[in-house]
Amino acid sequence: MAMKRAAASAVRALISSGNSAPSSVLASRGLHAAAGSKKIVGVFYKANEYASMNPNFLGCAENALGIREWLESQGHQYIVTSDKDGPHCELEKHIPDLHVLITTPFHPAYVTAERIKKAKNLQLLLTAGIGSDHVDLKAAAEAGLTVAEVTGSNVVSVAEDELMRILILVRNFLPGHHQVINGEWNVAAIAYRAYDLEGKTVGTVGAGRIGRLLLQRLKPFNCNLLYHDRLKMDPQLESEIGAKFEEDLDAMLPKCDVIVINMPLTEKTKGMFDKERIAKLKKGVLIVNNARGAIMDTQAVVDACSSGHIAGYSGDVWNPQPAPKDHPWRYMPNQAMTPHVSGTTIDGQLRYAAGVKDMLERYFKGEDFPPQNYIVKDGSSRRGALEGHMVPFPQTAPNDATCDSIGALLREVLSALASYEFYDFVLKRRLAKEMRSWASLKLLIYNQPDRRSTAQQSVYLGWSSSNWAGPVPDPANQSDFLNLATELS
Amino acid sequence: MAMKRAAASAVRALISSGNSAPSSVLASRGLHAAAGSKKIVGVFYKANEYASMNPNFLGCAENALGIREWLESQGHQYIVTSDKDGPHCELEKHIPDLHVLITTPFHPAYVTAERIKKAKNLQLLLTAGIGSDHVDLKAAAEAGLTVAEVTGSNVVSVAEDELMRILILVRNFLPGHHQVINGEWNVAAIAYRAYDLEGKTVGTVGAGRIGRLLLQRLKPFNCNLLYHDRLKMDPQLESEIGAKFEEDLDAMLPKCDVIVINMPLTEKTKGMFDKERIAKLKKGVLIVNNARGAIMDTQAVVDACSSGHIAGYSGDVWNPQPAPKDHPWRYMPNQAMTPHVSGTTIDGQLRYAAGVKDMLERYFKGEDFPPQNYIVKDGSSRRGALEGHMVPFPQTAPNDATCDSIGALLREVLSALASYEFYDFVLKRRLAKEMRSWASLKLLIYNQPDRRSTAQQSVYLGWSSSNWAGPVPDPANQSDFLNLATELS
Repeated sequence: MAMKRAAASAVRALISSGNSAPSSVLASRGLHAAAGSKKIVGVFYKANEYASMNPNFLGCAENALGIREWLESQGHQYIVTSDKDGPHCELEKHIPDLHVLITTPFHPAYVTAERIKKAKNLQLLLTAGIGSDHVDLKAAAEAGLTVAEVTGSNVVSVAEDELMRILILVRNFLPGHHQVINGEWNVAAIAYRAYDLEGKTVGTVGAGRIGRLLLQRLKPFNCNLLYHDRLKMDPQLESEIGAKFEEDLDAMLPKCDVIVINMPLTEKTKGMFDKERIAKLKKGVLIVNNARGAIMDTQAVVDACSSGHIAGYSGDVWNPQPAPKDHPWRYMPNQAMTPHVSGTTIDGQLRYAAGVKDMLERYFKGEDFPPQNYIVKDGSSRRGALEGHMVPFPQTAPNDATCDSIGALLREVLSALASYEFYDFVLKRRLAKEMRSWASLKLLIYNQPDRRSTAQQSVYLGWSSSNWAGPVPDPANQSDFLNLATELS
Repeated sequence: MAMKRAAASAVRALISSGNSAPSSVLASRGLHAAAGSKKIVGVFYKANEYASMNPNFLGCAENALGIREWLESQGHQYIVTSDKDGPHCELEKHIPDLHVLITTPFHPAYVTAERIKKAKNLQLLLTAGIGSDHVDLKAAAEAGLTVAEVTGSNVVSVAEDELMRILILVRNFLPGHHQVINGEWNVAAIAYRAYDLEGKTVGTVGAGRIGRLLLQRLKPFNCNLLYHDRLKMDPQLESEIGAKFEEDLDAMLPKCDVIVINMPLTEKTKGMFDKERIAKLKKGVLIVNNARGAIMDTQAVVDACSSGHIAGYSGDVWNPQPAPKDHPWRYMPNQAMTPHVSGTTIDGQLRYAAGVKDMLERYFKGEDFPPQNYIVKDGSSRRGALEGHMVPFPQTAPNDATCDSIGALLREVLSALASYEFYDFVLKRRLAKEMRSWASLKLLIYNQPDRRSTAQQSVYLGWSSSNWAGPVPDPANQSDFLNLATELS
């Protein structure tokens, strides 16, 4: 199979080049398991007759990431099920004694506080893919667990999918295809609302990894590209991508012919596209949302698609998932929806299966994971799960033994941050006042007691608009940080 | 409507910048009509209820390119119909006295030799769009007619559409969408054969304007891009686009995960993808064909889609068109077909409506058209309609009055060729032996008697592999051409 071979070989190249552990992060961590037999449970969707149709279809229960032979040959137990809900499900039986739980966002096993409490042996929660919404991260952190995903494994997949959906909507593909299968031929009924993408204004709400990959792929289409994010890109990257930063979301949205949603679901973004916001969009706007269904007000989207205010809506995310048979988005006009699949292409599956295997291998050896994969590390969370918008202490940061004071610790933090993607992403721009709404900072020193390591200390760099009233530090000047730290310490 | 406004403004910019006549081509031609009332007939598809849904929907019979008011205000008669077939159709009634016939490839009025014979006043055949397959070009040339189209008006539209179709097939969009509308949710049934485009080998058969625009848009997807054409691109352009030239089509095809057809329908390409050629493609290959349906053997495509040898086939061209209700491509598995619409987006319609208006305006004033628009000019054909692969004499070429010898004429030709796109496209590469199959040349001097101008002389630069056995001239050395001309003269 042409596509099968091409996908597999691309992933082999990726794994061999990028996923090996740099020696600097190989320091042993108490949290990780010593070698020994582990009980690993994987929860995946059943593929039934499709499981055998493609040897690279690794993400289903039958093929179980392709790691059974490897795990069992090392003496580990590997239970795989798709039965994940309710008190009598197969998963529930294994909760009390599993060490590792592997799940996917496509068929999520909800890891509630209650399940975490019952899981006395649980150490590691792995997402085969991206997105750990289904895990109670606070409970996981409090229990000292590690939660990790295969960061980056789906970004290309989703960005490509978004561009496909933009074109499907702009060019009015589906009515033409439906004519074909219905035995019809009526060019007018398609052409009266089919457009070129060229020359249109496309705005992405969020320009993280997926949003940037989308913008890069949009560039040769000669569109007017806009992006809104909390952060302006590096000017060089911005100019390479050819997109214009829009600080004010509500100033950007009414300019857009096409809006793409590329932001996470948070309390702030939930229901963000409600009746009022949609009313302010251009009449005839097209919306692509592969982020999360709940960012949209479901009924407001139905109403605007029915009135024609939204001329097309496409995405693979729903609220809830799986979408029930009577979900109104299935039946609204001008929708180009699919089930939640954009991140689970065969190529994506090969990447996240390889990423999960890599993390299990490191876990067995007591080695660190690639730093970007951690959501909660040994009970310490990144991505704001514990408080506001905290960013994690970088994985290369010192431990107690090398830091005898807050000041020394902070010096280490600053030095470590320089190599950490969040440094660029947050500090340089935030502190240079490019985001004026974040005018003040606070540094939080956390003492996070851990079930296994009593003295484990994590340092977070966070911010709030209320707790710090001093001048905004200059990111180029490390002493500003030390001064700040002194005042706070 | 967001898209409507954006499309219209982009086209206004295009027309005002690019379509005005350079003063050098404004020389009056005897063939063009003197000022006076003309009878112009336009044949377009009827849009019925869709006609009024978008003021920019110019390509339908009801909106008739938006030029009625303008034509009638100048005293011309403008008949518009969609009734074009059979001896008693509306078009047939106007054949005897029309001066200009405007047609589209989307609802083609067949201009046969018989109709041309009956059309005693006919001077000009305009295609609103691209493609003049529906005109008997030999008969038109013999009758001294001019046939012109709006070259370039659809190239972006078709290239975008091709990329959409590639993504739809690679990512297995349609089965997911059909699940949505059927109330289903089965990620496995989609994911087992959904891939990323990244890393796949995409080959275009033909890399003319559309093929190049496609390759440019594919570049950020990080594919392995191949192209086959009679001509290798300029090395700089090739490196910008990032595609590799494949001289031997049958060597390229088996390498491709995705094949895109971007070549014209000729006697040579008709049925080119037959059972034997398809059998040599990779199992699981995806094919996109927005060129012409007859390039494929219809049944061979059905069989290969049914067996899975072709894993997906998408395009908007059929043989015949409109596709009858029982056309097997409507019902074969893994097709993502539409009616023939890719070149008739609203943006495309605005461009070709503006292009037709521009040519009519020039016709009324007796001015030349933009040179690239001519298919047959005053009875002289380009694009090989009259003989082999002849290329036209450039529009800026001298007429009899300025050329008193073949040698002087050729010097003028060579100088004119330097500014003509075909020079780059054919001469530089052909003669530099990059296409070894074109090892020899001949220059043909035509005397083309014309109904209106008895002494009209056209010069063609053509080639054949048999009539010239001398050394291949160096394109950088004009004297090589003069020597060649001398020998032939």
